[in-house]
Order: sequence, then structure tokens, then C-alpha cells
Amino acid sequence: MKDHRIFNFNPGPAALPLPVLEEIQDNFLNFAGTGMSITEVSHRSPAFDEVINDAVARIRRLLDLDDRFKVLFMQGGASLQFALIPMNFLAAGDTADYVNTGTWSTKAIKEAQVLGKSVRVAASSEDRDFAYIPKGIEYRPDAAFVHITSNNTIKGTQWAKFPDTGGAPLVADMSSDILSRRFDASGFGLIYAGAQKNIGPAGVCLAIIRDDMLAKVPDDLPSMLKYTTYAAKNSLYNTPPCFAIYTVQLVLKWLEETVGGLDKMEAANREKAETLYGFIDGSGFYRGTADVDSRSMMNVTFRLPSEALEKKFVAEALENDLGGLKGHRSVGGCRASIYNPMPKEGVEALVDFMKEFERKNG
Amino acid sequence: MKDHRIFNFNPGPAALPLPVLEEIQDNFLNFAGTGMSITEVSHRSPAFDEVINDAVARIRRLLDLDDRFKVLFMQGGASLQFALIPMNFLAAGDTADYVNTGTWSTKAIKEAQVLGKSVRVAASSEDRDFAYIPKGIEYRPDAAFVHITSNNTIKGTQWAKFPDTGGAPLVADMSSDILSRRFDASGFGLIYAGAQKNIGPAGVCLAIIRDDMLAKVPDDLPSMLKYTTYAAKNSLYNTPPCFAIYTVQLVLKWLEETVGGLDKMEAANREKAETLYGFIDGSGFYRGTADVDSRSMMNVTFRLPSEALEKKFVAEALENDLGGLKGHRSVGGCRASIYNPMPKEGVEALVDFMKEFERKNG
Repeated sequence: MKDHRIFNFNPGPAALPLPVLEEIQDNFLNFAGTGMSITEVSHRSPAFDEVINDAVARIRRLLDLDDRFKVLFMQGGASLQFALIPMNFLAAGDTADYVNTGTWSTKAIKEAQVLGKSVRVAASSEDRDFAYIPKGIEYRPDAAFVHITSNNTIKGTQWAKFPDTGGAPLVADMSSDILSRRFDASGFGLIYAGAQKNIGPAGVCLAIIRDDMLAKVPDDLPSMLKYTTYAAKNSLYNTPPCFAIYTVQLVLKWLEETVGGLDKMEAANREKAETLYGFIDGSGFYRGTADVDSRSMMNVTFRLPSEALEKKFVAEALENDLGGLKGHRSVGGCRASIYNPMPKEGVEALVDFMKEFERKNG
Repeated sequence: MKDHRIFNFNPGPAALPLPVLEEIQDNFLNFAGTGMSITEVSHRSPAFDEVINDAVARIRRLLDLDDRFKVLFMQGGASLQFALIPMNFLAAGDTADYVNTGTWSTKAIKEAQVLGKSVRVAASSEDRDFAYIPKGIEYRPDAAFVHITSNNTIKGTQWAKFPDTGGAPLVADMSSDILSRRFDASGFGLIYAGAQKNIGPAGVCLAIIRDDMLAKVPDDLPSMLKYTTYAAKNSLYNTPPCFAIYTVQLVLKWLEETVGGLDKMEAANREKAETLYGFIDGSGFYRGTADVDSRSMMNVTFRLPSEALEKKFVAEALENDLGGLKGHRSVGGCRASIYNPMPKEGVEALVDFMKEFERKNG
């Protein structure tokens, strides 16, 4: 009972790879021979340097980042990035294009507007409750940047292919699909991601920033609100969230050494998503909510014939050790988040349960 | 060897109580019967609500906070607070009084100035390398607030008694002595503290804010940079640093239930500090660097007769399982940080080692 585990379909904080959790547990009282817990070691020690440098190196390798990019570990989640982006990259007279694909894009736009910055909503899928990713968007050639949300955790949609902006740097919130698939990072000025979905626990936010963006950061911002501060000090200007960074490092190690790299991770994610969507599409009982060509590989949103059945489904699933299947409180329905750490067995167990539930209630 | 532990005198991240670390380790794969790690549970689950609400309740109880105060968990450490304070509480035309007692006060002042805010340095101990806490300071009666650093980690000084500001709210960085001693919170408008010294791991910053300060927060700040956002949502506006908050909760539980409360904690801290300072004062070999009436109970800074001996001292101490005794890189010398979790036995072991080192090298 003590180490009883369930399949965790939570949208974030979310499942972590069991071998990673076991490694943390095993070394929790004595990290790397220091005689201290990872929660006690100095962030200015060789032992922690090794953690953060290894994490940075693995991200560079996994995403094929060239020398123009810096990998940063920040705090405050994507929500703080929503404010930092306009503060750092939108000077007076500049305008940015934002694509609105759901709750998080909407918040990103709002934070820029609160700051009095000039924002153009280049496209939106609000007309159909964000069930799709807009196509054929025309971006302003002089946009300071184009902001997108690569995967929409709440609505269950994902950009299948990143847009050609005609040169403007892409700025992407990848909180819910970072390192879940291969993509070409070279067109991105900034990629940011709260770690608590695909790559770690809550409390650290990854930021990957290109040198031309760093050059735009104004001097008159407080130290903690400037990307340059983090870039200049390898994210060690002040005490970073050491435990969260350590966990990310172990997840990255697992991704490279156990899973076998990003292509294998993507194949596994694709297989999990196809298993689940395939079953839903073949069922007359469950119904996917996102347009097929906009579906997320990470967050599978679906409805049952009634809200009463949805409630029953979520409760009975939990009794069967399948947790976190309730949809976001703002949209209802059901959602299975199947990030990198979710094993194939979890998705198979879910499909088996869904079949059985349909048989009994269909 | 696997669970070999040393006495950890690091200034932060710092030692945590061993029973707390063991409880985390023991429950790491299955938190509170959820079948998930604390790093995997939703911040919007009843299990996590219990964690954060218990942490808040314990802080309220330990510090005797009345209903005017809100207890918040934020990110970005004290360094982010340096910026948030002037952004939230210094309107155009307002001025704040800052007392400069060392590196962190200096940074707090600088961040306010970067924002173009009006700051008066009411007093400074820079003339003698911050070896003391200034006395007889005159505060401006119309100051928006008076900012102090209650304990100076780097210089080893501490306010023995908090100043009477004549009504202006005190704003205090208590990162390195929060919950180490009893004090009257009623005169404080804001108390903030990075957790990684006395009460937890890195990655979470405690903020205790009074309602009159919340009333001053302007509307035109981004959500994550306004104290009101955190106050309105019990620190759950966005995903908080769950693991760090959980660890803080366990440290607070240890403080109340194992140590026996704040008065007992203070007595233990006083005894540890007196043991160490008493030995230093009786020695002709070691020399304390802070003025006696300004000495910190948390960070004991001292020098040896030469830098070569200091280097040897730090290295040999570590060989004897006494870690983290090097002074801050900006000041040199030695420093023993003896926060709440450092047991008396650690200080006694240090004194024994110091005696032996003096005997061999004196």
C-alpha cells in the first residue's frame, strides 16, 4: 500500500517517470555524496553546477540548439512569462502579433495589454470555443514577434506544424508539449515552458532564448524581470529552485538514456495518442471535442453522452486507479493528459476501462 | 554510506530537519494515499489544499497574526520582492525610507531606483563594511514604508529589536531569520522571506502582507507582479511550487510539534549562538567580525589569523563532516550559518573542531 501508484492523467502537475521518482527518493538524504539532501546543497557548489549544466546540455542536445540560444531556468511559470515578454521585447512603437487559441493565449494577450503594449490578435479560434488551430494566418511583416501557444492544455488542440511568420521571431508557450516531439527551433526567438507537464515538477520554468531577443532587453527593468540577468549568470543570479531543476535534469536523462531520445519519445507519444483517439473515433459513446486536424497529442479532450455520465466516469476511473480525468473546470467534460512520462500501459488501461464503462452505461 | 550525513553550515540553501527529509523520502512515491508523488499531485486537489492551508494556519499561529494579514507563497525569492515592493507600494510622488545594512539591502534599494522610484536611504552602515546595525535612525513621518533587512546573511548582523517608525509600515526582508524568534508582527506592512534558510528549500518565497498594503496595489500591474493576485486566490492563481510549499509545511509542523513552538525555537537558537560566540570571544585565534550588539543569531561570521589558515580551516572542517563554513565570496573569512534546523550537536561539533584546529595551528 505504501508505494501504491495509480496512472495519473492530470494536466499538470502531472505524472513523472517512476525511475526518476525512485532515484530522487533513493538519494534524498545524501545527494551525490555531499552528505546533504538536494534540498540542502548550495546552488553555488560543484555538485549543483553539475546538475544545472547537465540539464542545459541535454536540452541543447535534444532540441539541436545552435550557439545563438541560451537555456534558462526561471520561476513564476508561464504566467510570469506572459508579462515578461511584452516588458522585454515590446518597445514603444512596436507591435506584436498574437494568435489566440485558448485560455492561455488569451491570458498572454491580456497581460501585454495591461502593460499598455500594442498587441494585434492576428487570428483567433474563439468563434468555435477554441476547438481548432487557425490556418492561413497573415502575420504583419514588421511584427516585433509572433506569439503562439503550441499546445492548448484546456481545449486539447496543438499546432501540428509551426507557422511561417515571414521572418518575425516566433515566441511560443510550449508548457504542455515541450520535448514531446521534434521541431526546428531555429525560427523561435523565445520558447518557454512551465516544467510541470512534460519535463518536471511545478516551480521551474524553462526559457530558451535567441541572442537577437536578448539584445532587445531594455536596461531599465528590475534584474529579476530581465532575461539578460538569467542569461548572464547561467540562471544563478539568485538562488534558483534547485530541487525542481534537479528533477528536470533527471527527467531529461531518462528521456535521452531510457527512452532513447526525442524521436523515440515522439513515436511513443504518437502511438499513445493514436490508441486513444482511435478508440474514441470508433466509439459512438465517447466524442472528441477538438477538430481532427488540430488534435493535441498531449491532452485528449472528450465528452460522454451526459454530464451525469461524465461525473460517474471520472469517479469510477479513479476507483480503478486512473486519476485526473476530469476536464478543466472552465469547459467540463473529460480529459486524459498523456505527457511524456505516461507509459503506453496507462493509455491501454484507460482504453480498457472506457470500453467496460461504455458496455455498462452505453 | 548511502545515507551518510554531515553538519551543514551553508548559508542557504541550508540544512533541513532530518525528520522532515525522512518523511518526504518515505512518502515520495505515494503522497497522502493519492497514489502519486507530491511532485505529481494537482495543485487544485483536496490533498494539496490541505498542505497549503495547513502551512498558512501554522504560520498564522506561530507569528500570532491577526486577521489583517494574509500569508502568501510566491516565487522568485527575495530578489523578485525587491522589485515588487516599489512597483506595488510606491506611487508617483511617494517616497520610501530604506535602511542599508548590507548586500541585500543595497540590492533592494537599487531595484527601486531602476524603476525610477523615489527612495531615501535613512541610514547605512556602509562606513564600517556593514559590521553593525545603525541606531537612532530618524524616519520620515510621511514615508510610504520603511524597508529593513532583519538579518544580514553575508555580514552576520541582525536587528536585535525592530525600529519604531512613527507609524510608517515596516517592510522587512526576513529571508535569513524568519521564524527563528518571537517578534510583534503588528507594525509590519509586509514581511517576506525566501524559504531556503530557516523554513524550507529554495523555490518558494513567503510573503505576509497587511490589508492596508494590499489596498495600495495599483491595477495596472501584470497579474503575477501584484500581491493582490496571490491574496485573492490563496496563492493558487497559477501553479505554485508545490513541492517547496509541502516541504515548508513539514518544517512548520516540525517547528510546532517537535521543537514545541517559536519560544522554544528561539531559546534553542540563542543557546547555539551563545555557545559559538562565547567560544570565539574566549579565543585569541578566532575573531568575530560583527559588532557585539549587532551580532546575528543565524550567521556567525569570523576570521582566522590569515587567509591561508581560513582556507585550511574550511577544508579540514569538511573532512570532519562540517560543511559550508566558507564566508561569502564577496567578504571572505568564515561563516557558520546556524538556522533553525541546525541541531545543538552540530554547533558543539563545530566548537570541538575549532578548538582542535586552534591547538594545531595557533
